[in-house]
Amino acid sequence: MSLHAFFAPRSVAVIGASTVPGKSGHIIVENLVNLGFPGAVYPINPKADRILGIRTYPSLDECPAVPEIVVIAVPRDAVPESMAQAGRRGVRYAVIATAGFADTGDDVGLDLDRRVHETAASFGMRYMGPNSIGTIDTTTRFITSIVRNHTPPAGPVSLFGQTGLFASGITRWLAQSEPFGVAKIACLGNKSDIGEIDALGFLADDARTGVIGCYLEGASDGREFFRVLCRAASAKPVIILKGGTSSLGSIATASHTGTLAGDAAVFRGVLRQAGAIPAEDWEDLFTLLTGFAHGPLPAGNRAGVISITGAGCVLAADAAERHGLVVPDLSPSTIDRIREFSPSWAPLRNPLDIWSTIERLGVEEAYHRVAPVVAADPNIDMLIVATTLFDGTIFDCSSLIDKIRDVAPHKPVATVLIGGGPDENRAWTIAAHRSGAATFHSLPRAIRALAAMRDAALRNERSR
Amino acid sequence: MSLHAFFAPRSVAVIGASTVPGKSGHIIVENLVNLGFPGAVYPINPKADRILGIRTYPSLDECPAVPEIVVIAVPRDAVPESMAQAGRRGVRYAVIATAGFADTGDDVGLDLDRRVHETAASFGMRYMGPNSIGTIDTTTRFITSIVRNHTPPAGPVSLFGQTGLFASGITRWLAQSEPFGVAKIACLGNKSDIGEIDALGFLADDARTGVIGCYLEGASDGREFFRVLCRAASAKPVIILKGGTSSLGSIATASHTGTLAGDAAVFRGVLRQAGAIPAEDWEDLFTLLTGFAHGPLPAGNRAGVISITGAGCVLAADAAERHGLVVPDLSPSTIDRIREFSPSWAPLRNPLDIWSTIERLGVEEAYHRVAPVVAADPNIDMLIVATTLFDGTIFDCSSLIDKIRDVAPHKPVATVLIGGGPDENRAWTIAAHRSGAATFHSLPRAIRALAAMRDAALRNERSR
Repeated sequence: MSLHAFFAPRSVAVIGASTVPGKSGHIIVENLVNLGFPGAVYPINPKADRILGIRTYPSLDECPAVPEIVVIAVPRDAVPESMAQAGRRGVRYAVIATAGFADTGDDVGLDLDRRVHETAASFGMRYMGPNSIGTIDTTTRFITSIVRNHTPPAGPVSLFGQTGLFASGITRWLAQSEPFGVAKIACLGNKSDIGEIDALGFLADDARTGVIGCYLEGASDGREFFRVLCRAASAKPVIILKGGTSSLGSIATASHTGTLAGDAAVFRGVLRQAGAIPAEDWEDLFTLLTGFAHGPLPAGNRAGVISITGAGCVLAADAAERHGLVVPDLSPSTIDRIREFSPSWAPLRNPLDIWSTIERLGVEEAYHRVAPVVAADPNIDMLIVATTLFDGTIFDCSSLIDKIRDVAPHKPVATVLIGGGPDENRAWTIAAHRSGAATFHSLPRAIRALAAMRDAALRNERSR
Repeated sequence: MSLHAFFAPRSVAVIGASTVPGKSGHIIVENLVNLGFPGAVYPINPKADRILGIRTYPSLDECPAVPEIVVIAVPRDAVPESMAQAGRRGVRYAVIATAGFADTGDDVGLDLDRRVHETAASFGMRYMGPNSIGTIDTTTRFITSIVRNHTPPAGPVSLFGQTGLFASGITRWLAQSEPFGVAKIACLGNKSDIGEIDALGFLADDARTGVIGCYLEGASDGREFFRVLCRAASAKPVIILKGGTSSLGSIATASHTGTLAGDAAVFRGVLRQAGAIPAEDWEDLFTLLTGFAHGPLPAGNRAGVISITGAGCVLAADAAERHGLVVPDLSPSTIDRIREFSPSWAPLRNPLDIWSTIERLGVEEAYHRVAPVVAADPNIDMLIVATTLFDGTIFDCSSLIDKIRDVAPHKPVATVLIGGGPDENRAWTIAAHRSGAATFHSLPRAIRALAAMRDAALRNERSR
């Protein structure tokens, strides 16, 4: 099914809109205002005239128009009736933020879940949730999150899964640190109706989505999931973190959203077979997303590495070998060019320790002179620029990245930061991101991402 | 040998002290001033009267007293003569900051190295370097770093290795983010004289050092290294990251500091046999240091986990199974106590998803009510408190940690942050650290550290 209405509706009603700051029903309206959603917003509250300056209606029936979608944030017992009101008014889509349904496992919750499902079916409605933290679209500026969010930067990555993390803490991180830009976020919640098959199929066709990231505990229909996954993965990179790989994890999964998780090993095999990329854990998911968000995919497996420290060179070579990348010799003309401005005694090889050049030229000048030359080397398919943040090494990297990309537009560029404080890490990451380079905080992570990108390129070549 | 003079000298001369801000010879003096080193500082510069207000001497001979140690930051050709001057004046110890010796591999560098070594031997001098970024001691406030540094927080962790990262970017990170506190840092550089055997032996006996972290590319005398490592590891946790595990990494190692690395697998076996803890990579080294810095070691392998999200519960259970920890049932009395202030339908089990309690009590109150009860549960040997940082979940965690530690002083406590911005991550990390809890930014990392701490506890029990 199309999830168009969940990301780009013309109008939205918020059932359970609240005048009380901090309440879910207030935050939903607040986010729509703050993100600048240009469509019509109808807060529904029987006792309020205005919420955040927006004309508020006592019921859906009194709205001047039929909203394309409703967001429901009333107590759980009132959710079935809210759905029925929406259905009677002709609304086709709903996000149910309220929790306390199949996620509880109790009889009351399960019964409410059944009533919501029946109501929706009787009106031909489709809904996300219950227990959905919400959706975000950085292009249409539509948001249904019940968590007050900074606006994440726009970009190619779309995220979905039953967890609410994507539209809460992760959005905040994305907004403040900008490791990559975001197209759409969908927190599916209990998946009582719309599930990962719908989300994946929709994002596979979504022109704004270049990379898909997913946290998954299980799939309700394995055969159909596989079919949709194959289609999605042939269109764009799909990175999936499977939760519930342990026996206890599987029990926790069953309780958390009322689905049953399949056997972990089977699941990972299915992912690879479909052409998707399994992530090891949460950090690995974001490592991979950061890499793939800053394509292009490398045309070969040969990495050029520039580091400010000898240890960085050693650890990069170690990690490259572990992940199947090669750190080849630089071509003689590259070495000749770097020699021109480096001390005669400096060993010039890949991985390249540029400390001695830095002592001669200063940090920024040394990177500006060396990195484009290495990037342009025909022996190199991708470039890793590692540095250590301390007083005297911190500079605005955006013109450096621009220069590298000018001479090697078809090679991925990753920067790696070691040490330094949070603010300087953030500033570098944002500058690199906006100029088209991924930033990692460890060499093995950068190499892990680039190696996965090389695998994806090989898969693409084979399937052509 | 004792490295006492490298961390706690009464007086220091800086040969090559510079009036030019940003030069190594200026930064060394600046750091001594900024860190508040209380001993005598003698900048040596033939052309300056004062540097940063400190009386400067044209040569070592004109110093009013013999300094206990000299720091040498002159061009490489002048280093042998500086060493000879120091030797003639009766100085016994030197840190040589200048690079361009065995690290270059060129004949000039190797010849200079030989001359420095012979000069030192003829005067009975011991020296760190060449190519040493320096030492830091947070107790004596002595610092020889050639990188302008913030002051790292004082604490139990001592770091050493040939890399300069420890006294540059890492110090800056430690100072600004405070994942743990530091006792001593030594960047050994080329190890032409003082090597890892000296550093490890000294730190093994150092009362201020509770945990040792080391980056190592190779050992010059394997037998002696093993002997000292056994002694150190029986006294305190010793965590070692071995660089140069790949073939290319080994070549890079050979070039970087002129030593030869042993076979990686042999090396790791040696580490384990000696009772040391091998780290997988740079991030893993700091993950382990963060855990061990916030003992106590757990008395068993049973982890209590509290999370704000269902996904956190699932991923924690997965990681625990991978790393050999158990996530046991909570005792009935614990569940009864938590039930008192939680919704009747909320599933209460370990890992514990406290979102429904948060909805009732607010985040801070929910954690304050739940976490001490779980920590005190006799079924639990360690506690992991996971949260997600977004608007409405951010609070000062120090009183929470204090409360947990009051009821369970013998159990390690780890907090885990997912999402959020850099500043709020920093603020939480510092607050938790000061109250005695480690902070990680992923559940698998927290569990990795706690599992390693449990292994260390078992080893200690067996060796008793």
